[in-house]
Amino acid sequence: MRIAILTGGGDCPGLNNVIRAVVFQAIKKYGDEVFGFLYGWKGPINNLIKPLTLNDVEGLFNQGGTIIKSSRTNPYKVENGPQKVIDTLKANKIDALIAVGGEDTCGVANKLCSDFKAPIICVPKTIDNDLNATDQTFGFDTSISIVCDALDRLHTTAKSHDRVLVLEVMGRHAGWIATMGGIAGAADYILIPEEDFDIDKVAEAIKARKKEAGYAILVVAEGAKFAKEEILKDQEKDAFGHVKLGGIGERLAKAIEVKTGFETRSTNLGHIQRGGSPTAYDRVLGTRYGLTAVDLVHEKKFGRMVSLQGTKITDVDIKDAVGTLRTIDKELYEQTRVFFGNEINKIKPKIKA
Amino acid sequence: MRIAILTGGGDCPGLNNVIRAVVFQAIKKYGDEVFGFLYGWKGPINNLIKPLTLNDVEGLFNQGGTIIKSSRTNPYKVENGPQKVIDTLKANKIDALIAVGGEDTCGVANKLCSDFKAPIICVPKTIDNDLNATDQTFGFDTSISIVCDALDRLHTTAKSHDRVLVLEVMGRHAGWIATMGGIAGAADYILIPEEDFDIDKVAEAIKARKKEAGYAILVVAEGAKFAKEEILKDQEKDAFGHVKLGGIGERLAKAIEVKTGFETRSTNLGHIQRGGSPTAYDRVLGTRYGLTAVDLVHEKKFGRMVSLQGTKITDVDIKDAVGTLRTIDKELYEQTRVFFGNEINKIKPKIKA
Amino acid sequence: MRIAILTGGGDCPGLNNVIRAVVFQAIKKYGDEVFGFLYGWKGPINNLIKPLTLNDVEGLFNQGGTIIKSSRTNPYKVENGPQKVIDTLKANKIDALIAVGGEDTCGVANKLCSDFKAPIICVPKTIDNDLNATDQTFGFDTSISIVCDALDRLHTTAKSHDRVLVLEVMGRHAGWIATMGGIAGAADYILIPEEDFDIDKVAEAIKARKKEAGYAILVVAEGAKFAKEEILKDQEKDAFGHVKLGGIGERLAKAIEVKTGFETRSTNLGHIQRGGSPTAYDRVLGTRYGLTAVDLVHEKKFGRMVSLQGTKITDVDIKDAVGTLRTIDKELYEQTRVFFGNEINKIKPKIKA
Amino acid sequence: MRIAILTGGGDCPGLNNVIRAVVFQAIKKYGDEVFGFLYGWKGPINNLIKPLTLNDVEGLFNQGGTIIKSSRTNPYKVENGPQKVIDTLKANKIDALIAVGGEDTCGVANKLCSDFKAPIICVPKTIDNDLNATDQTFGFDTSISIVCDALDRLHTTAKSHDRVLVLEVMGRHAGWIATMGGIAGAADYILIPEEDFDIDKVAEAIKARKKEAGYAILVVAEGAKFAKEEILKDQEKDAFGHVKLGGIGERLAKAIEVKTGFETRSTNLGHIQRGGSPTAYDRVLGTRYGLTAVDLVHEKKFGRMVSLQGTKITDVDIKDAVGTLRTIDKELYEQTRVFFGNEINKIKPKIKA
Repeated sequence: MRIAILTGGGDCPGLNNVIRAVVFQAIKKYGDEVFGFLYGWKGPINNLIKPLTLNDVEGLFNQGGTIIKSSRTNPYKVENGPQKVIDTLKANKIDALIAVGGEDTCGVANKLCSDFKAPIICVPKTIDNDLNATDQTFGFDTSISIVCDALDRLHTTAKSHDRVLVLEVMGRHAGWIATMGGIAGAADYILIPEEDFDIDKVAEAIKARKKEAGYAILVVAEGAKFAKEEILKDQEKDAFGHVKLGGIGERLAKAIEVKTGFETRSTNLGHIQRGGSPTAYDRVLGTRYGLTAVDLVHEKKFGRMVSLQGTKITDVDIKDAVGTLRTIDKELYEQTRVFFGNEINKIKPKIKA
Repeated sequence: MRIAILTGGGDCPGLNNVIRAVVFQAIKKYGDEVFGFLYGWKGPINNLIKPLTLNDVEGLFNQGGTIIKSSRTNPYKVENGPQKVIDTLKANKIDALIAVGGEDTCGVANKLCSDFKAPIICVPKTIDNDLNATDQTFGFDTSISIVCDALDRLHTTAKSHDRVLVLEVMGRHAGWIATMGGIAGAADYILIPEEDFDIDKVAEAIKARKKEAGYAILVVAEGAKFAKEEILKDQEKDAFGHVKLGGIGERLAKAIEVKTGFETRSTNLGHIQRGGSPTAYDRVLGTRYGLTAVDLVHEKKFGRMVSLQGTKITDVDIKDAVGTLRTIDKELYEQTRVFFGNEINKIKPKIKA
Repeated sequence: MRIAILTGGGDCPGLNNVIRAVVFQAIKKYGDEVFGFLYGWKGPINNLIKPLTLNDVEGLFNQGGTIIKSSRTNPYKVENGPQKVIDTLKANKIDALIAVGGEDTCGVANKLCSDFKAPIICVPKTIDNDLNATDQTFGFDTSISIVCDALDRLHTTAKSHDRVLVLEVMGRHAGWIATMGGIAGAADYILIPEEDFDIDKVAEAIKARKKEAGYAILVVAEGAKFAKEEILKDQEKDAFGHVKLGGIGERLAKAIEVKTGFETRSTNLGHIQRGGSPTAYDRVLGTRYGLTAVDLVHEKKFGRMVSLQGTKITDVDIKDAVGTLRTIDKELYEQTRVFFGNEINKIKPKIKA
Repeated sequence: MRIAILTGGGDCPGLNNVIRAVVFQAIKKYGDEVFGFLYGWKGPINNLIKPLTLNDVEGLFNQGGTIIKSSRTNPYKVENGPQKVIDTLKANKIDALIAVGGEDTCGVANKLCSDFKAPIICVPKTIDNDLNATDQTFGFDTSISIVCDALDRLHTTAKSHDRVLVLEVMGRHAGWIATMGGIAGAADYILIPEEDFDIDKVAEAIKARKKEAGYAILVVAEGAKFAKEEILKDQEKDAFGHVKLGGIGERLAKAIEVKTGFETRSTNLGHIQRGGSPTAYDRVLGTRYGLTAVDLVHEKKFGRMVSLQGTKITDVDIKDAVGTLRTIDKELYEQTRVFFGNEINKIKPKIKA
């Protein structure tokens, strides 16, 4: 068979492991030929294609990013895009396409499957871990490792200076990175997009924590929101009356300063959260996804997406994965409240630094 | 309530996260008092006990090991041991004991539950990941991360010198660390305790790999065995006729040298695989286990063990976890063969360094 | 003798190694008693003091921050501050004070030495590496390691998306972190406070680099400045005419976008650059400084600062270290230009991604 | 000019940084052509040569090992070897050769310079840091970082089980890695090749340390030796009278067990100490060496070796670097004794775990 692979959306540690596994499995197990479309869906739209050999992927096991590049191009937003994709597949005699991506990429794949019976298998990818129909997506573990490492570092500064520090992390719609990273790095408060926060409650918890431990560290997902933000009304202008505050991390830090009087600083990890060498966990998950995707191709299970269920890699209908986001497990998030200053406080704890 | 905790068996990254979570949950959510028995079951046998406060556990989130120490003492092998444990619990008015450990520790807990209706909850711990009734145990992820990092390092040397290198890793009875670590670190052959290996087959695969890539890296679990080891008969003596070879790593390296003529060196990670700061994954898993264990105590679900099932922490009967070991998922191991030189070889691959 | 130690200014990986070494050397080699003043100079001003034992410092070898806390308090800006310091030393029968700090802390020490003949030894500390009279200060190596790790991560994203990325790092007055971190992490342009930059030249270099490699990564020190910034005049306002841009990283990214048309994003490492477990290098340097500082105390070489000269720890007059900052070695910075796109371009290089 | 580069001896993190810097400097600053001889001196002997382009070296900044391979071939031990080297240089019209290596490689270079006036510049490389005429060699910092990380991990196990652990590290003739790594990782005893050790003194120190802290960790260089080893006479045979012990780590562990009665285990880091991604320090040092080596070529300073002196890269005569090894700075080693149990013990310290 002639199999093609593309990677769509934001890059994510583990993509190269998927590509490497697909190439090994296809060539060594099945004797296939493998091709990479470049820049996500832009590849099949514009016929950007190149062969992938064992030699090309050999050394990718510890390399972040994607050697076949990525983009956010959506064929359904390009004139005659879907047809162009189908035509390119035919022109290159591609028997099956493995599309690695998240909500958007898989959504396109799903439509191409129903509109054209396109021979597509999906591999789920979203660093935010908010895709349905799979227990976890690769890249997420690397991301929380980076958040965790950053929190370890912030702890030493917060402790040495008795300070309040805020770390803003990824998570536009779901609080997975904030919650898991925050548990790992011992955050004293975690704020997520799924639940608008009451700044007064947060301030009270931070005050309690400061009293107990002398310092406090908060993790806030980029998509988290104030229930009411009026506290910042008078704060967010500079001497010229100009707005000065940026993202939620900065806004939260300022609001805490106003409410508690404690000096509070924020840091935003930005792109650093999504790059670099993948963790062992993500390398294994990406590899297993890639190996199984090629098996699905040979079973002609088109329209399916590989999926982690417990310890097994299995497959689900692509359309089960798209449409709605997988938000945080509420039970898990509620459990973490025991670490939030005075949120849960049966007896008065005493921590001395 | 008065809750005690003990940690038994070999130490494991994540133990301190369990302890920290137990103390926070017990004190802050339920207003309990918490105590640590020192040195595993030796603690309750000899009444080695100390109170644990929030202050004691506050900074444990990134610390490996266990602050309440560990040992391999088994009360059922100590004269009147089980009764001493029960007496100590009573003498200290302990309402519930959380026992953190593997096969042995949980086996003792199981017996104490049935023999004395002792109020025990177990938390599964085994760095080898070979305990039944849970998807994963903490410490395992840290361990494969260390193996993976070591393999990344060995790759650069193997490649620069066109050499064959062997890495011996933990796994007396199960090949989890070897398999998962080996996938993550791109091993070219993985040898596990569950399957005695044919040195001729291994040698052929290594020859194929050397031809393709110039070098080869093998991972071997400490419990792996030669199907027939006679090849070493004439090799394992020094000039004085003395045995010179140590563990399986060294024996395998020597056998490969004999069979292939390639210079082959081995390294054994030893204790380095089981210590140090836990990965984010293990911190989260240990924390969730600890939080849930205290909930189980308050639900009086004695005789139960916390367990990871998919993405949820749930509980199972302790006796479901003990008695037999969880060996490697055969399907997973078989999948990795595609990376083993010529094991699976539909078409002749060509990799050039 | 009764020796006291204090740590002043921003925290820095390696401070705890200095403290640990001072306590071991003083107690074990000389039979001294050791005390810590808390919160920098605030400690002796307000008599915040506690004994330091071997037990207190035993486990500090891999811990960032400072267990005796820090602050930026300057006795010369507190009413009767200097006299209070002297009085506290006398009241506690302190025979010698080891002051660990940078420009400010050592400046105070220098004045106290000349004004009161105070028995002070200094240990140089500045994460920016901009202190005179020593080859290097501890914390700097950890800092460039963090910058380097961040750049490794940014590379995978920049490459996968053909993007321009900017990393803002510490360095208000000196470009050491930017230059050394940038060399280590293969930055394609490095901007430092010592040299105002011409945005047109930078843009040309980035265009050249994009053409060669498809992507580009810049490192900019927080203290770097545009030679002329008018390009941002029309860019830095939002729909309401409000200023939106923050630090130099964001401003530079915007200016590059305007000049080149390439999508450009910036990240600011913030406090993450100065915390966490020190590198092996910084642990060794901090330890050697601490051991030698106590020797100097016993040699009564008051008014001296320990200093790294080549491979040796020696000592210099405190006043040689303060007064002027050590800016970047121009020759070193100039050497890096060969990596800046077209800055140095004997023949047209061709790099294909 | 046409410049060639070769890398000889054991691989070392930072080699690829030297190669990358040489190629950038030669092509971009001087418009040279660059070639790599493969497998050290075997390359020019057998005319194994390939061009090196910017594209080849672009991504090497974070890659360990050497893309032009290495070997221990010595032309002066190959028939007509030196003449073959000279002939190959001429045949390929190579105007200058940059030889990157240690004692052996530089020794050959030195002879070729005097025997044939060969146009050679050396770059010092030895992971053991035992080369004369330079303050430090690249690879060494990465190595002590790995040792330090291993010691951090061993600490948690040693502490949790009250155990004595031995780590064997590189250093056949010099104790640099053992001493610097041991300081960084808080070893409780450090044994080096420069000083045969008295096992009785070591045992006493370990006993003192065990009493103070409950556990102890030793670092031993592979080249360290017992002053008298008779203690092992009765220990080193198995039931069949065969020798069982391997390297110095195992022998030392056994001797400590015999002398103290404490269970003692050893680990040998092996090849893991010399591979993998270089630290920021080594990347910078390798890069600066490479850039300067090309400058020296253009200044026609043949017979010189680049060298770190304080913070500057300068150059020395190759023959100043070879002939004798640079052993440990005695003063530095003596300073560390304060951490060795009871070696230096003015007053009885009390550390409680």
